Amino acid sequence: MPEMLRTPAEPPAGVRGIMDAMHRSPEGRAEVLTGRQYRMANEHIGRIIAVGSGKGGVGKSTVTSMLALAAAKQGLKAGILDADITGPSIPKLFGLEHLPQPTGEKLEPAVSTAGIRVMSINLLLDDPAKPVVWRGPMVGSVITQFYTDLDWGKLDYLFIDLPPGTSDAPLSVMQSIPVDGFVLVTSPQELSVLVVEKAAAMTKMLDVPLIGVVENMAWLKCPDCGKRIDLFGGSHTGRLESSWGVPLWTTLPVEPSLTALADA
Amino acid sequence: MPEMLRTPAEPPAGVRGIMDAMHRSPEGRAEVLTGRQYRMANEHIGRIIAVGSGKGGVGKSTVTSMLALAAAKQGLKAGILDADITGPSIPKLFGLEHLPQPTGEKLEPAVSTAGIRVMSINLLLDDPAKPVVWRGPMVGSVITQFYTDLDWGKLDYLFIDLPPGTSDAPLSVMQSIPVDGFVLVTSPQELSVLVVEKAAAMTKMLDVPLIGVVENMAWLKCPDCGKRIDLFGGSHTGRLESSWGVPLWTTLPVEPSLTALADA
Repeated sequence: MPEMLRTPAEPPAGVRGIMDAMHRSPEGRAEVLTGRQYRMANEHIGRIIAVGSGKGGVGKSTVTSMLALAAAKQGLKAGILDADITGPSIPKLFGLEHLPQPTGEKLEPAVSTAGIRVMSINLLLDDPAKPVVWRGPMVGSVITQFYTDLDWGKLDYLFIDLPPGTSDAPLSVMQSIPVDGFVLVTSPQELSVLVVEKAAAMTKMLDVPLIGVVENMAWLKCPDCGKRIDLFGGSHTGRLESSWGVPLWTTLPVEPSLTALADA
Repeated sequence: MPEMLRTPAEPPAGVRGIMDAMHRSPEGRAEVLTGRQYRMANEHIGRIIAVGSGKGGVGKSTVTSMLALAAAKQGLKAGILDADITGPSIPKLFGLEHLPQPTGEKLEPAVSTAGIRVMSINLLLDDPAKPVVWRGPMVGSVITQFYTDLDWGKLDYLFIDLPPGTSDAPLSVMQSIPVDGFVLVTSPQELSVLVVEKAAAMTKMLDVPLIGVVENMAWLKCPDCGKRIDLFGGSHTGRLESSWGVPLWTTLPVEPSLTALADA
């Protein structure tokens, strides 16, 4: 079975420090607009961290997976809610295909070999290539159900992997789930940062605390000569720090070997 | 002003052949569900090509821009409708900021120095970093208006740059604009191809002709030692050809110098 994270490998050095930064980030659970029931639904979940970007393809799912793995390595209970309904990647990264048979009244998340609890639309589909061609209200309603109607058990951290954009899915997450903090993932080029700034602005509009930036795909070590290659020219990530007052937590390289493992 | 495509550079070799393939692709304008008025709205547009992926960050906007540039280099009139309302990249790629003052009753697209006509939500915003936090119906309605309510003039090709996913924006394009052909953009790793297959399945559901695949970000030439680096391990793009019967038109590398130009 393919599973990047089934391997005993430690998360990359750049990710380990993030957990400390995350623990230290101020408490600030967002007020949700839809009332008290959502907050009550899973009061045994410690912290809820949304991982988003606005931009697609910057590695949100990989960063989410690494954060959950880093938490698990510290002995914390971690879960991932895959809010990318039309382009889910999380099950493939963990080699998961189906939900377990429920033992109680509620559905339960799948559990990776590292003990990470995972919910994703692709765990409900017969064929993982089947498209989910739904308009926004359906998408939002399913995401909310993943939070309210699932028996997550006791969790220290629930990470929510957001899809690109600033439309229905991120809106539904931030308006109906009491998110404690939002982690922005970007790649260094200005074209990405421009779009990521839109997501930053959205968190401010919705009053969700922006806690850190992860710059991904920043560089690559040539496997042949060992030289560092800046994949996208210079970095523009600093603008997220200066304009939005959010600290850059780490800069991660492209690791072709990791991708190959995820694909294996 | 930043403009990757303002430079006199030819499109990369891999892109030039695509135009021939596109000219040769069978006629097959999609029946739109919303009636005759959309077809009439712009009957002076020759062919309408949607460029999509399902997956984010695989370079849809760059491929769309290169296709339009390749068409312009052949003396054809080309336009781009940026249907990525929450993460628009096209204006930045062409160094465009605002729409021109309209000369008639209808709004007119901006025109790049290469003569490519461009419409994007970011050409309507005071601040390009401003987020567009809209639910799906608004997004769909604006995309439709970009097609029906704009004076595109006579065009040989209108390229539509789709956002990731299979929800409102791609649905609105395929249900309300008479698309002749859909070009799939992917990157080689299995995680991408899995999501791109969902977009392929969507085109079949909506009866839009799938005409070709562009594999992007496949490899990189080390600027130091010149060796080819396969960025994402082996390629899984072949599955799109075998499962969906759609030809692979070209495989494009990552070009850090191009990104730097776009960012310049």
